[in-house]
Amino acid sequence: MSSALPAVKRQTPNNGSPYHLLYWPGIPGRGEHIRLALEEAGATYTDTAHIKDGVNEVLSLINPEHIGDEVNPPPLAPPILKHGDLVISQTPNILLYLGPKLGLAPSGVDADGDGLYVINELTLTALDGLSNEPHDCHHPIATGLYYEDQRVESLRKSKDYVANRLPKFLGYFERVLKSKASGGGPWLYGGKLTYADLVLFQCIDGVNYMFPKATNKLRSSGLYDRVFALHEAVKERPNIKEYLASERRQKYSLGIYRYYEELDVTE
Amino acid sequence: MSSALPAVKRQTPNNGSPYHLLYWPGIPGRGEHIRLALEEAGATYTDTAHIKDGVNEVLSLINPEHIGDEVNPPPLAPPILKHGDLVISQTPNILLYLGPKLGLAPSGVDADGDGLYVINELTLTALDGLSNEPHDCHHPIATGLYYEDQRVESLRKSKDYVANRLPKFLGYFERVLKSKASGGGPWLYGGKLTYADLVLFQCIDGVNYMFPKATNKLRSSGLYDRVFALHEAVKERPNIKEYLASERRQKYSLGIYRYYEELDVTE
Repeated sequence: MSSALPAVKRQTPNNGSPYHLLYWPGIPGRGEHIRLALEEAGATYTDTAHIKDGVNEVLSLINPEHIGDEVNPPPLAPPILKHGDLVISQTPNILLYLGPKLGLAPSGVDADGDGLYVINELTLTALDGLSNEPHDCHHPIATGLYYEDQRVESLRKSKDYVANRLPKFLGYFERVLKSKASGGGPWLYGGKLTYADLVLFQCIDGVNYMFPKATNKLRSSGLYDRVFALHEAVKERPNIKEYLASERRQKYSLGIYRYYEELDVTE
Repeated sequence: MSSALPAVKRQTPNNGSPYHLLYWPGIPGRGEHIRLALEEAGATYTDTAHIKDGVNEVLSLINPEHIGDEVNPPPLAPPILKHGDLVISQTPNILLYLGPKLGLAPSGVDADGDGLYVINELTLTALDGLSNEPHDCHHPIATGLYYEDQRVESLRKSKDYVANRLPKFLGYFERVLKSKASGGGPWLYGGKLTYADLVLFQCIDGVNYMFPKATNKLRSSGLYDRVFALHEAVKERPNIKEYLASERRQKYSLGIYRYYEELDVTE
């Protein structure tokens, strides 16, 4: 259905253009999944989090007065990726775009390329259960209210999360790592690192920061050894290791993964 | 990175195989987004919701003992699509796979194909704000608890949802429909119906069922005329119209969109 697409063609070819990430400064947040993919691949990119007044560029794109351009609708929220004159948002969507280009996913939609749908599926599931749900543990009622206005509900949700949801999702990914489709090695799919592994790494890393007691207890159970081993294996990738030790890796703060002592429960 | 993919090749070519949807019977649920795409395209498909004991097939695939096969990791939850020997899950992922095949999205990842990322982005955003959040309005604390065990929190979240979140997402899609990238017609992108339009239709339809008072109030404001017009335009598509009138269209019940009188608030 190419003929139905906007008549205005892209002026700038995307290939060869630098990658530009737009995200809030001061937290790893959802932008971190994009950064880890770019860093693992050794790609050249710019990041508004490290540009003076870079936040203004984020704000201008999500301003309700902004209605996009000929080929790009306005984004609702960061992370946003600019590449050539393409402007896309939504974490798993940006990763879907970048994955094949960065060698972190199969490309194309031929028989082998169906692997891209597996990697997208695993990414969506990790983000659902190990990023969105932890976020909701400190904001179960309203994202527009302070945590302090929903502390009682947060504690109730956090208790359910560590008792039921976190084991469910760790168990699921342990099962994926056991499956023949994983290739039998440390990675989720096809015997090779993909961006789904980087997403799962960041999710485990964040959950471990937010719920250290529950995470330690689950680690000690021995039921999820493959998942925790994947977290360690990603951490030791040379480019990731260098990145995590650099100033580009921002500290956890008041983002998705937050440490509140009273939410650090084990049941 | 084809060489890194599992050595076992698919035995059954996907093209030409029938589509088989696996989803819970008795609710439209997340499976409805897949059904609407298949119905609009006039595709031949089977659906466990309409097969005697079809639920057993769903249960066998999400059983914790199931670890997938050579090319497919186990799915966590339905909707699940089987096509040839491909087995994929996650609503936006299944739509991404089906969209180009059904003529409901551009195909490929060339310059024009970048439109697929726009459609995926809009789909993810609609599902976030107009499907996942409404679900959480009746299950803000735990999906594993009954609504009756979280009624107080549900009312608090529903009030915030209709006052802040619902207008935010309607306003966002109104803005997308105003953008030049929409092509100026009734559809979200490129002047032609895509699966993102079908997703937005189902989201508006469900929100209207769950929060009729708030939806009517917002419709009457005139601020979101394009969004509500899109809902009407999809409803009038010949294949969709026939589907909605058929027994294949299941009634809203205890799924994502539920009607609780006490949650039908306007502020």
